[in-house]
Amino acid sequence: MQNIDLNCDMGESFGAFNIGQDEVLMEYVSSVNIACGFHGGDPSVMNKTVKLAAKKNLAIGAHPGYPDLQGFGRREMKFSPSEIYDMVVYQVGALKGFATVAGARLHHVKPHGALYNTAAKDPAIASAIAHAVSDVDRTLIFVGLSGSAMIREAGLAGLHTASEVFADRTYQDDGSLTPRHSKEAMIANPAAAAEQVLQMVRRKTVTSVNGKEILVNPQTVCIHGDAPHAPDFAMALVALLKKNHVAIQRL
Amino acid sequence: MQNIDLNCDMGESFGAFNIGQDEVLMEYVSSVNIACGFHGGDPSVMNKTVKLAAKKNLAIGAHPGYPDLQGFGRREMKFSPSEIYDMVVYQVGALKGFATVAGARLHHVKPHGALYNTAAKDPAIASAIAHAVSDVDRTLIFVGLSGSAMIREAGLAGLHTASEVFADRTYQDDGSLTPRHSKEAMIANPAAAAEQVLQMVRRKTVTSVNGKEILVNPQTVCIHGDAPHAPDFAMALVALLKKNHVAIQRL
Amino acid sequence: MQNIDLNCDMGESFGAFNIGQDEVLMEYVSSVNIACGFHGGDPSVMNKTVKLAAKKNLAIGAHPGYPDLQGFGRREMKFSPSEIYDMVVYQVGALKGFATVAGARLHHVKPHGALYNTAAKDPAIASAIAHAVSDVDRTLIFVGLSGSAMIREAGLAGLHTASEVFADRTYQDDGSLTPRHSKEAMIANPAAAAEQVLQMVRRKTVTSVNGKEILVNPQTVCIHGDAPHAPDFAMALVALLKKNHVAIQRL
Amino acid sequence: MQNIDLNCDMGESFGAFNIGQDEVLMEYVSSVNIACGFHGGDPSVMNKTVKLAAKKNLAIGAHPGYPDLQGFGRREMKFSPSEIYDMVVYQVGALKGFATVAGARLHHVKPHGALYNTAAKDPAIASAIAHAVSDVDRTLIFVGLSGSAMIREAGLAGLHTASEVFADRTYQDDGSLTPRHSKEAMIANPAAAAEQVLQMVRRKTVTSVNGKEILVNPQTVCIHGDAPHAPDFAMALVALLKKNHVAIQRL
Repeated sequence: MQNIDLNCDMGESFGAFNIGQDEVLMEYVSSVNIACGFHGGDPSVMNKTVKLAAKKNLAIGAHPGYPDLQGFGRREMKFSPSEIYDMVVYQVGALKGFATVAGARLHHVKPHGALYNTAAKDPAIASAIAHAVSDVDRTLIFVGLSGSAMIREAGLAGLHTASEVFADRTYQDDGSLTPRHSKEAMIANPAAAAEQVLQMVRRKTVTSVNGKEILVNPQTVCIHGDAPHAPDFAMALVALLKKNHVAIQRL
Repeated sequence: MQNIDLNCDMGESFGAFNIGQDEVLMEYVSSVNIACGFHGGDPSVMNKTVKLAAKKNLAIGAHPGYPDLQGFGRREMKFSPSEIYDMVVYQVGALKGFATVAGARLHHVKPHGALYNTAAKDPAIASAIAHAVSDVDRTLIFVGLSGSAMIREAGLAGLHTASEVFADRTYQDDGSLTPRHSKEAMIANPAAAAEQVLQMVRRKTVTSVNGKEILVNPQTVCIHGDAPHAPDFAMALVALLKKNHVAIQRL
Repeated sequence: MQNIDLNCDMGESFGAFNIGQDEVLMEYVSSVNIACGFHGGDPSVMNKTVKLAAKKNLAIGAHPGYPDLQGFGRREMKFSPSEIYDMVVYQVGALKGFATVAGARLHHVKPHGALYNTAAKDPAIASAIAHAVSDVDRTLIFVGLSGSAMIREAGLAGLHTASEVFADRTYQDDGSLTPRHSKEAMIANPAAAAEQVLQMVRRKTVTSVNGKEILVNPQTVCIHGDAPHAPDFAMALVALLKKNHVAIQRL
Repeated sequence: MQNIDLNCDMGESFGAFNIGQDEVLMEYVSSVNIACGFHGGDPSVMNKTVKLAAKKNLAIGAHPGYPDLQGFGRREMKFSPSEIYDMVVYQVGALKGFATVAGARLHHVKPHGALYNTAAKDPAIASAIAHAVSDVDRTLIFVGLSGSAMIREAGLAGLHTASEVFADRTYQDDGSLTPRHSKEAMIANPAAAAEQVLQMVRRKTVTSVNGKEILVNPQTVCIHGDAPHAPDFAMALVALLKKNHVAIQRL
């Protein structure tokens, strides 16, 4: 029996604006990354989501993003590393507050959207995030794209890291994710996604869109929660993994 | 020799928008209440202000307010107690993050503006703030208007409290502050303000606008930092207090 | 054959956050009130919604609200009449810009949420809104609660007015709406709602929750668009009205 | 006697946060570019600023920027041309509303900060702004950097254009502005700035930081209003221009 951590972004609703099906998806994952009020989430959504995750004994992570609610943190913005440091301290601190009042422990941090993508490539931004996390709490695990600058810089900052791979995204020959605007970016079929995850877990490889087998380091697998069919996808994926003797277990 | 704590609201600038003369005023006060990004302040301002206060060994407080930057947190807004609880946890958590990365300790919490005024009168709102503070960190001191619902509810929530009086505001016969829109709301003369503080410290009373001597419990004295002459006022006030054997000392 | 205008609030989505089923509901109504970016809506949502309404030849209205996205403009906030005036000019001006680029004409203005409720009772606020609308464009029709301060003040400001009644809300003996938090506030059954509208159109009365028949002046009927079943409700209501020889027609 | 238009960015204060010395600077300029609430300004600041400019008979322009109050619209953000189009329609529409209620006419549009800099180089962004302006009101003058994509695209969109030069910024050999982070970016001495403007007006050239004389097309000259000494600078510049028979006159 092998284990893998399954994570999902959550708590991204804002006031009367609902996104995601958090409560249902919590049945299938072992870790959650909770938005901190910048790209999504608000104090009341954060409190509710943290409490729910704590009740279900999931690993609770902060999911900091750019201060761009309208763009859902997916638009690139130009910040200095020190601005990035400050906005990560702010968001992680706020989420840690909610973990405390829920009697839970903040477990990890995973950057969101454009912040994640920029930090995957830009060592200065990755380092700023890593030091913000480390300075707030050096026991936090840094979750970042497998093989990226995030993992390297977080390691240099003395943090434990978790290399993230994707169940429902395809990969390029160089190990990067196929950009979202490409038609073949997403894997819609849960069976195909489960196949990809199984290969990642068993062989530590993924097959690129061009058929090349490339190395990955799967410590946590991301599934997406914002599609209408997300719960069905998650249920099918988890069932297929279990059938193949891969258990879902937090880091 | 008697002691009194002198506090001032700080870190209320936002991006390119500067308010206050924080660095100068830090020379005169013993405690600072730092805005948390809702009515003023942003992550970079918060980090800089906390670091500066830590360097000067001032007592660092969180200064949470309503989410109304344009109104500077001074416009009344209708929130449920649970919304208030959530927004206080968020802001206190964020500021605590900055205290941690500065190697400092968060010391107290003082609500801002309309949140302060509402909580002074409304026990349900005061209780929500107090429990948010207590649930984040029960060692935090709750700073609130002397004799108000804030002090009572914070005590019921098991928090240490500090009753706040004002150096440059006048009082009504019932112990409430003269509303800001009144012509006699403010004491512009530092000597008169120092006289008021001396009477508060020595006799535990203040003389109302109608000449009535009323009881107060002065544990911390607020001075305002947003007027252009604020540093001169602070310097004169501190000099007069020292001359009269009252030392400025944190709680 | 009698006519009635049927209006619905629209364009309240924000970035990635979707609210409402605007395109479907546009099939049933004759007028739309489009959010202006304060309580909901963003520039791209506004443009898309105005274009769609123009294509379907619906009467296009501005739907200004409080600057409180998280509270969806439903939380009471304390503004001076001059602040209200300014925020209405801003929002109506912005929406008028989108009407212009769509080759359409802005037709009416209807306040949203807490701004609507406050203006229904407070003549100073109602007057501020009315003068803002009139000063931007005196040909605009002011849509407000039937019998309220909004209708009176808009008339005094020289505007054409349209008295609004509700298909799916119940009424108190004094003609006010039953507050939303009450269990009997909403009429869930489309047939009952259609009955209420028919009575309003034919007899100019509505029967209160206590069985009292009270006078109303139905010039436009509001239906709500944010419930999941809103399109079904609208379809059933429109069918029943047509069957009873009441045509849906813009003002 | 020659004429030149002198313009200044104004109305960039936000709520309690003051920036600039608008009223004093209005004595020296012929045109103002008024912030529209995205990078600075709020509805009440806009109304007050438009009214003041109208009273002084200045040419009133809209000054749209990125939706980034904390960054004052100076941080690069990645938007699609259609998002840019929408945000410019919104802001120009809002400011036009205030011009209407002031009994004034909106005269021109000048993009702000990072939007200006991006549009100077990126024809797709420049074209999106130009069409937004043209679609709202084809009589508006488009103010953009002399020789840039903005001027070309606005011309293609059928707009009248005004080429902008800078009194207090230095130029590179290719006609671009020396980046702000460079030590020699700014001309602090009013006499040197006046010399530069005189040369621009008389010879249609500017001397670059490397001593090269390059062609410019000065139709409007920008002065900055956010430095503490801005009014002194403006007064000295205007005096020197007048002494040299150059009158300040709106386009």
